[in-house]
Amino acid sequence: MKLGIVGSLAYDTYSTPRGRVERALGGSATHAMLAAAFFTRPVGLVGVVGEDFKDRHLGFLRQKGADLEGVARVPGKTFHWKGRYQGDMGVAETLATELGVFASFDPRVPASVARAPFLFLANIDPSVQSKVLDQARPRFTLLDTMNYWIASKKAALLKVVRRVDALILNDQELRQLTGEAVLTRAARAALKLGPKVLVLKRGEHGASLFTASGVFQVPAYPVGEVKDPTGAGDSFAGGFIGSLARSGRVDAAALRQAMAYGTVMASFNVEEFSVDKVGRLRPADIRKRHSELRKMTQF
Amino acid sequence: MKLGIVGSLAYDTYSTPRGRVERALGGSATHAMLAAAFFTRPVGLVGVVGEDFKDRHLGFLRQKGADLEGVARVPGKTFHWKGRYQGDMGVAETLATELGVFASFDPRVPASVARAPFLFLANIDPSVQSKVLDQARPRFTLLDTMNYWIASKKAALLKVVRRVDALILNDQELRQLTGEAVLTRAARAALKLGPKVLVLKRGEHGASLFTASGVFQVPAYPVGEVKDPTGAGDSFAGGFIGSLARSGRVDAAALRQAMAYGTVMASFNVEEFSVDKVGRLRPADIRKRHSELRKMTQF
Repeated sequence: MKLGIVGSLAYDTYSTPRGRVERALGGSATHAMLAAAFFTRPVGLVGVVGEDFKDRHLGFLRQKGADLEGVARVPGKTFHWKGRYQGDMGVAETLATELGVFASFDPRVPASVARAPFLFLANIDPSVQSKVLDQARPRFTLLDTMNYWIASKKAALLKVVRRVDALILNDQELRQLTGEAVLTRAARAALKLGPKVLVLKRGEHGASLFTASGVFQVPAYPVGEVKDPTGAGDSFAGGFIGSLARSGRVDAAALRQAMAYGTVMASFNVEEFSVDKVGRLRPADIRKRHSELRKMTQF
Repeated sequence: MKLGIVGSLAYDTYSTPRGRVERALGGSATHAMLAAAFFTRPVGLVGVVGEDFKDRHLGFLRQKGADLEGVARVPGKTFHWKGRYQGDMGVAETLATELGVFASFDPRVPASVARAPFLFLANIDPSVQSKVLDQARPRFTLLDTMNYWIASKKAALLKVVRRVDALILNDQELRQLTGEAVLTRAARAALKLGPKVLVLKRGEHGASLFTASGVFQVPAYPVGEVKDPTGAGDSFAGGFIGSLARSGRVDAAALRQAMAYGTVMASFNVEEFSVDKVGRLRPADIRKRHSELRKMTQF
């Protein structure tokens, strides 16, 4: 096993201007795993689900490349997010967050995940991210978070940020974390918090990679219609870390390829609701879009 | 002469959060010419100035590569724009537009410009753009415009749009011209108005090239500090059309190089007020930034 992912496994109920789903399969770890497993298998998942989590969903994740040894199934309800997107779907509006079994989640990392050289701490309570890191010996760790944790658990978040190799954020989160409005300055400030790599997700405007040696930029892959942005950032991160884990390298060239694959996986994610599109992709679809993205940016 | 440019020669009085200038040299043709002349000289300017236009400014333009045979100096005042930028400087707020000699401008295109294979109809009244096109025989014409003309002279604008090869707009102008909110759809709609090439300027988010054969994207060159966005779009267009004119080609590869050079010229433009930075650039500065931009986007 080359890659472990900790994060949420969830049911999501939400609407966008293009439709609505009820208790659809979601969660940061779910979306990230489904994307990453196109590059390396198995992906060791660490998380928790409740008694209401459907067997067929566990079966689906396993079939798609997840190793579920680290996923506990405990009494109580699975994490349930309720929200909506309006207008250009730039921002998810949370209507309700039912933590359920995540409220008391104490992660236990299986030996196979502890030994994996790559680890993705997907969006989840930073103290849970820390506990996972305590039990693992990764060579390269990527961390995601969200506005909620930056606002409510900043000290715990900064503590785990100091311990990771790479940070992945959107522009709003980067500004909030660093207190810098200008993105280039905010990026430099973030690289002083510990990580040597910053991945900045800018939605329809693409993504940027900041390291000590400079900036790399990749545009978003232009999709015909965005139906559902839920999990796009997780799919990006999954494609990014999956690509790195497959190559086994974290040099500049590998990081750039990872940015391209993250972009591609996010573009598929938004084309349908929940995990519908990524869940039935074929590797050839990914190769094709990667090649198109390259053609779209070369001069 | 390979390139002619028609547009405004102006004095600009405005403030940004970084400073303020009074009666600084400006205008769409001025900014575009200064950028284009790094790629091909002379650039044939077509425009009009008033009695108040300073000899030293005419001398400066000539020294920078302009052929001024098509610039009339007539009784009256030079076009004077007064405005301001606030916050992130995304939008120019117009406080006053004193048309002056432009109110009755009837362009006369010199033979040298009429014979030039490349023509840029920079932002100006679309009926003036039409009159210039009537007198010229370009192989490739690029057209720019602005929200004001889209709102107030749409019929005249659409008439000249039908006659050109390429259109250059920012995202807001593209949406306004086509009535389509989603940019990819708006781009397709714009390509049905006549031009075979659409250049979409997205400010800090870079620029996109749309043709029948697909999309090309280039990020903005990340500058340390934006001091003054005035003329950035004109500098982009000047770099774009100048690069095409130098190569003499308008194929996919040439268009992509032109997008990169447009991006580079716009990035210099915003680093200082008015024409200050582009006015004293050296060709080596442009080559260096072009090479950096390429490194920033390859994977």
